[in-house]
Amino acid sequence: MTLVPPGDWLISVDDHVIEPPHVWLDRLASKYHDRAPRMAKGERGAVWQYEDKLVPTAGLSVAAGKEKEEFSPNPVSFDGMRPGAYDPIERVKDMDRAGILASINFPSFPRFCGQIFWEAEDKNLAALCVQAYNDWMIDEWCGAAPGRFIPLVIIPLWDPIGAAKELERTAAKGARTFAFSENPEPLGLPTIHDPGRYWDPVMAAAQDTGMVVSMHVGSSSTMPSISSDAPPLANLTFGAVRAAGTMLAWIFSDYFERMPKLKIALSEGNIGWMPYFIERAEQVIDKQRHWAAKAGVQFYKGDSGTAASTPVPQANLATLDVRRTIREHIYGCFIEETSGLRCLDIIGEDNVMIETDYPHSDTTWPDCIEVAQQLVKDLPAETQRKILRGNAEKLFRFTPIEPTITPAA
Amino acid sequence: MTLVPPGDWLISVDDHVIEPPHVWLDRLASKYHDRAPRMAKGERGAVWQYEDKLVPTAGLSVAAGKEKEEFSPNPVSFDGMRPGAYDPIERVKDMDRAGILASINFPSFPRFCGQIFWEAEDKNLAALCVQAYNDWMIDEWCGAAPGRFIPLVIIPLWDPIGAAKELERTAAKGARTFAFSENPEPLGLPTIHDPGRYWDPVMAAAQDTGMVVSMHVGSSSTMPSISSDAPPLANLTFGAVRAAGTMLAWIFSDYFERMPKLKIALSEGNIGWMPYFIERAEQVIDKQRHWAAKAGVQFYKGDSGTAASTPVPQANLATLDVRRTIREHIYGCFIEETSGLRCLDIIGEDNVMIETDYPHSDTTWPDCIEVAQQLVKDLPAETQRKILRGNAEKLFRFTPIEPTITPAA
Repeated sequence: MTLVPPGDWLISVDDHVIEPPHVWLDRLASKYHDRAPRMAKGERGAVWQYEDKLVPTAGLSVAAGKEKEEFSPNPVSFDGMRPGAYDPIERVKDMDRAGILASINFPSFPRFCGQIFWEAEDKNLAALCVQAYNDWMIDEWCGAAPGRFIPLVIIPLWDPIGAAKELERTAAKGARTFAFSENPEPLGLPTIHDPGRYWDPVMAAAQDTGMVVSMHVGSSSTMPSISSDAPPLANLTFGAVRAAGTMLAWIFSDYFERMPKLKIALSEGNIGWMPYFIERAEQVIDKQRHWAAKAGVQFYKGDSGTAASTPVPQANLATLDVRRTIREHIYGCFIEETSGLRCLDIIGEDNVMIETDYPHSDTTWPDCIEVAQQLVKDLPAETQRKILRGNAEKLFRFTPIEPTITPAA
Repeated sequence: MTLVPPGDWLISVDDHVIEPPHVWLDRLASKYHDRAPRMAKGERGAVWQYEDKLVPTAGLSVAAGKEKEEFSPNPVSFDGMRPGAYDPIERVKDMDRAGILASINFPSFPRFCGQIFWEAEDKNLAALCVQAYNDWMIDEWCGAAPGRFIPLVIIPLWDPIGAAKELERTAAKGARTFAFSENPEPLGLPTIHDPGRYWDPVMAAAQDTGMVVSMHVGSSSTMPSISSDAPPLANLTFGAVRAAGTMLAWIFSDYFERMPKLKIALSEGNIGWMPYFIERAEQVIDKQRHWAAKAGVQFYKGDSGTAASTPVPQANLATLDVRRTIREHIYGCFIEETSGLRCLDIIGEDNVMIETDYPHSDTTWPDCIEVAQQLVKDLPAETQRKILRGNAEKLFRFTPIEPTITPAA
């Protein structure tokens, strides 16, 4: 149990829930029970079964509390993980122990933004599964400990109108944010640059309901590959390039001009790369905007020659202010790093939030609050509080309820 | 003309030469003249012709001295660029004007690491073309102004044994570095992780001759794409992810363990992203090295499930020290940014070098030395000198000759 008093605890904007077995069977009519997500027996214990898919839980996704020497990507079942992974009451105990005042949780079996339902054959059932997950997350998981969980929901990615309705429905029930893809293209979906404005109903509903667009790194179902034979840990280290791409895609899109109240969070994107790409974006805009703004201009391709550009909706390059765009719309989320915090004036001290990534292998648990306080210790007290909890409280319009715990002496 | 005295000028480790028309015809036997690189008439003036290819010069590659409003990717010929692009005497005048004491120049028509010759049909002719380029670079370009140019050569990428010989030949003539690909895989060549050790003869010769491996951003002939429809300037801003991947690929390879004197430079890779990826690499190694080191381990793929890893030669994860590896082997090269310089303790003040990117559109010319001095002004005087010239002098074993110029009052 941490010695830090609850008033000084942190809000983690990125943790993960392992769905318990009953989430969908409890909520779907029995006629769906032979196709809905349910448990089956796999080689190493229980796995999820959904339509014709078997989906295990990777060991690295439930590493909290294990020694590093025990970490393994191999599948594990419920008996191989802390109960805090799947039980909200146990989770709160683990949060209390580590100084986590409140927590946003991303789905596991549905994947970071519910990709499993987009891949499903039966989209009617999939839509019901999305609603069931959201009801479970709000009513059962978050409901188990009022003031300790910020509800994050998922949407039917294949149905923007239905997704907008689901955002409205769940916002009315208390949801504050929804999981979106860092890059829908690898999922086979239109990107945010789609001239047909595929995502407009979703983003308009997000803006209207105040729901934050939370994009977890990996929610494009891709793993960045330096080369096909690069060492695994090189590629793992490289992972944040996805979040960097997401930030740039949104900055140069026209969404923030058209939807001035929209907010996005780069969940587990980390922040140390942000200052560089912000400065670089400013230089690129300064030097290259004139030719880039011309319709039909030839675009520089690779290091040789040119190729025709395809005009897409994009920000007005003559007026685009990168830092103002970030201040008003974009939030960086980090676990444990120092370089981004040294350049906080570039990112903006109101636009950075901490996370603990429980129960994944990158988690700082059980030392979350101690690690976090150490990271921000050289910042002014007011800035420390913003990063540890204030920015999350404001962005997600969430007032945590501090537990009445007397830390052990 | 700058008012800064020549003793305080900078060494630019990344500029570009536009080859004048006679480079190859002057040096190859006349029987090759109908297939060797030569000038032809294109739609907008002279273009290079080589075998069956026509290769123009992109306007953004010769933007120095133009107003930003005039920048254009459209092809230009010699009359559309400053003579300093292709004439070494004129180049030195432009260097004197901007406070550039010495300069490393990458090829243009051959592309950043000589890809055009690797793509050629006739590899015998291509090998002669590589030698001709190198002789021209050393004898004619660098020879025109002793002490002002650090010779960079290219290699026959398809012939590691021949490449090693060419490194030895050109090192004996004064070459100090050679252009290598940031990622050979997109070129259709083995990567540095090749179990067959394709590049060993080249890297062994580089180590033996003290030739630095200079990898220019874009030397994989790729342009990073966030998505197929991302706005062009978003992708352009994203460019440094290639250098980040290169740094990680080398850190996690086993090259530095096997070749402890090898040095690599991330030309035009910029540096602001380095502190983040260094810290992240350290965390990944700390937390994930145990399972990653196990033979036959399953590797975490994307955000769902696992896939078998292919064992490749890699660094010993139990002893890999990221910061020591960087201090001893890796050099970051930047044009104009601040965030990396604020975290210089993470990168290492001996491992950062400035560049001016003349005559490309990112160049700081004609304000090179003033911009550079402004960027480093808050650093100790000794550190400033290291970044502006000292690190380059040491790495490239080059003693510049300061011109006897009396700055105009």
